[in-house]
Amino acid sequence: MMSKEGMLQQKVEDAKGLFKDRKVTICTIGLGRIGLPTAAMFAAAGANVIGVDINPEVVVNVNEGKSRFVDEPGLDKVIEEPVRLGKLRATTDFSSAIPKADFIIICVPTPVDHTKTPNYSAVISACSTVGKLIKPGSVVIIESTVGPGTVENLILPILESESGLRAGSEFGLASCPERSDPGNIVMNMKTVPRVIGAINQHCLDIVADLYETLLNIKVYKVNDPKTANAVKLTENLFRDVNIALANEFALVFEKLGIDSLEVIKACATKYNFMPHYPGVGVGGPCLPSNSYYLISEGVKAGHIPSLVRMAREINDRMPEHVVSLTSEALNEVGKTIRGSKIAILGVAYKPEIKDVQLTPMEPVCNGLARLGAVLDIYDPMFPGENVFGYTTRRSVAQAVNGADCIVMGTAHKEFLQLDLKLLAQLTESPAAFVDARNIISPKDALASGFSFRAVGRPSTSGSAQA
Amino acid sequence: MMSKEGMLQQKVEDAKGLFKDRKVTICTIGLGRIGLPTAAMFAAAGANVIGVDINPEVVVNVNEGKSRFVDEPGLDKVIEEPVRLGKLRATTDFSSAIPKADFIIICVPTPVDHTKTPNYSAVISACSTVGKLIKPGSVVIIESTVGPGTVENLILPILESESGLRAGSEFGLASCPERSDPGNIVMNMKTVPRVIGAINQHCLDIVADLYETLLNIKVYKVNDPKTANAVKLTENLFRDVNIALANEFALVFEKLGIDSLEVIKACATKYNFMPHYPGVGVGGPCLPSNSYYLISEGVKAGHIPSLVRMAREINDRMPEHVVSLTSEALNEVGKTIRGSKIAILGVAYKPEIKDVQLTPMEPVCNGLARLGAVLDIYDPMFPGENVFGYTTRRSVAQAVNGADCIVMGTAHKEFLQLDLKLLAQLTESPAAFVDARNIISPKDALASGFSFRAVGRPSTSGSAQA
Repeated sequence: MMSKEGMLQQKVEDAKGLFKDRKVTICTIGLGRIGLPTAAMFAAAGANVIGVDINPEVVVNVNEGKSRFVDEPGLDKVIEEPVRLGKLRATTDFSSAIPKADFIIICVPTPVDHTKTPNYSAVISACSTVGKLIKPGSVVIIESTVGPGTVENLILPILESESGLRAGSEFGLASCPERSDPGNIVMNMKTVPRVIGAINQHCLDIVADLYETLLNIKVYKVNDPKTANAVKLTENLFRDVNIALANEFALVFEKLGIDSLEVIKACATKYNFMPHYPGVGVGGPCLPSNSYYLISEGVKAGHIPSLVRMAREINDRMPEHVVSLTSEALNEVGKTIRGSKIAILGVAYKPEIKDVQLTPMEPVCNGLARLGAVLDIYDPMFPGENVFGYTTRRSVAQAVNGADCIVMGTAHKEFLQLDLKLLAQLTESPAAFVDARNIISPKDALASGFSFRAVGRPSTSGSAQA
Repeated sequence: MMSKEGMLQQKVEDAKGLFKDRKVTICTIGLGRIGLPTAAMFAAAGANVIGVDINPEVVVNVNEGKSRFVDEPGLDKVIEEPVRLGKLRATTDFSSAIPKADFIIICVPTPVDHTKTPNYSAVISACSTVGKLIKPGSVVIIESTVGPGTVENLILPILESESGLRAGSEFGLASCPERSDPGNIVMNMKTVPRVIGAINQHCLDIVADLYETLLNIKVYKVNDPKTANAVKLTENLFRDVNIALANEFALVFEKLGIDSLEVIKACATKYNFMPHYPGVGVGGPCLPSNSYYLISEGVKAGHIPSLVRMAREINDRMPEHVVSLTSEALNEVGKTIRGSKIAILGVAYKPEIKDVQLTPMEPVCNGLARLGAVLDIYDPMFPGENVFGYTTRRSVAQAVNGADCIVMGTAHKEFLQLDLKLLAQLTESPAAFVDARNIISPKDALASGFSFRAVGRPSTSGSAQA
């Protein structure tokens, strides 16, 4: 009996023995920012890992032992050795990989579409293929972020119907949502406990042992996959809602002539407060999308999470506010957005990340361009490259030279020590400065001759304020 | 010149010298849960303190060296000695107290009225009286929670017009919002840094030195009174919004058959998550009101904080949900709310607090009574007393005896170790149990024969759940 020999049919102690002896083959589907380090770390721990991706460029890159994520410290090193030792191979060929695997880990993207509806097509496609090729007794692990219930109600039926096997007895299924922050993935994967939920206790125990034994990480077992997915969403939505709350306070405090940054620093002296900061909005692959996975399940179940939805709206509207602040700051020096040359410093959605996915600086740039500004973008992660239709400059000086306004869009390290007086000399005086990330001292900006606006800080003109 | 001799006219070093020598007279207005410990702690530190309150009972009580707050550990001890030494006296007579004081600290309540509008009448009345009686050079400190701008735009003009003195040069004015949690006031006042904003730098320095020197506490100076008030609101609204978020998740997760408590515990293993818990709602003197101070200022300034407002709505609706859960749980054992005897365990708005101010258990009790239930309330802080129109029982057993349903309303310590099997024997079997505070193990409740519901947990019948 094939099924007798599968991973799921092992006793927990026996499975653990196999993991300790590194007698385990893992197939990861998707070699992106999560899938690649996941594959590499299991391989570096001694497992046989086959990484599958539909993109041949990605596959070739991995097989050369290289990380294409220049912004993930340490990832290069994690990949190099297992590729050299033959522990990690990548392929575009699902049929050569999946049938060999004891565990198949799904790490494909789950974005939202332009109507903010979760788009599970990559997960559906991956699981259909896995279902066709899975060997009996293997275990499927979903690391992709999905709404609670998606594993039980969407993924499980696909796997069953494509494989002809029964979930629970003939193949295993678990959720182990990734909990890492881009830019810190390797460190996070080594330190942040994993939350795992599975369709039965035996499957849960085996998957938990896999992560504990090979990745040497703490595991937190929960009741079922939907609970694990709820955990992932709850922790990310906590951040999104609290950033929205910081933005809401910022918008009120601007009107009241109060400095939000001063408020937040003071609040942080209380034991039960956790600081979150206002800014141009929220970007990246997770926070701008994750809410909609919960909203979607809430709509279906008859309870729409309205606070979560409103938080999204608030964060989504912040780029418009930054455009308004730019207009105000330029107005103060007698200029309009139309015809102004505006230097954009930073477009990545967060510091030290080479990623403009859903970055709030894209609507800022487009908004300013639509109003007639000429943009010069510089981002240290994208020097002289094309980002959302703009060709970027190669230095701060290049971008700022002759500018009527500077908009600070990302708190990259390079921007934390700017000499504002020198910058002012490069600009077309009188010039404006808009800090959408609150890294510039308003005093310094004023002393350097800029008209100045920042998110959540009183206008420095002081004219309209109480 | 009188004004030459006032506290405000001292050099900062000289003022500090006076504080070190305890040559300072303080008048606190309002001897409530904040004013009394504030008065007592300054007096215990050696200042001459006169506490003023309009309630003669309170004044007599203080002059006997007693704390009427049985739920404030350590407060009795703080009051006793300074009263004995004559350092702390209380009076109803403003005119005998205010003219002697170097500092007048306002600690009167700032509730919201039935339309959720901030009611500043106690502050206005206190400040009018202070204005009439203040000696030149004295400093007024507002500890009461008020909206940002209220000190500058409401209190300052009253003090100026009533006194005929000029704020800043002839009297001082500062905000030092209390940051203590009821039930822990003495400890909080000794450890939580104070945030102080004043109408000018000199006044700020002197008030900061007063708190630092006499209360031996860290001080965080901010730009102005409105910033200090913004800090107070931001930290409390952070809690209110996050509790609302926990309640929102709870309501969605109930529908999805997910245990919110399990989710929160798992989330807490991530470094950037802070747990807040769902329940019957939010009560007490601060959280249910504070949002409206910011909303009110936001409405006036043209930016309504919609997230904060929605959070209030969510928390305000939780009692209705607990009534629904009670109906469900009773329904499961074939009973209706009408005619059922329901034992309410705990009505205080939080554990170990003798306070039912805006407690969410009041609308729960009234909702159940309106639907025809007969209520037996027990709360260890209110044994055999009258709370919002009900006479309470003297023990759990008295309340539960013959009950068709038990509703857990406050997580008092006494309720954490209840023997559910014993309780079940007292009830009119089959009985229901509704845990509005998530302190009861669903398994134990079921094993004891109760039909069980809890906020944010899947219904144990399992019938309607995915």
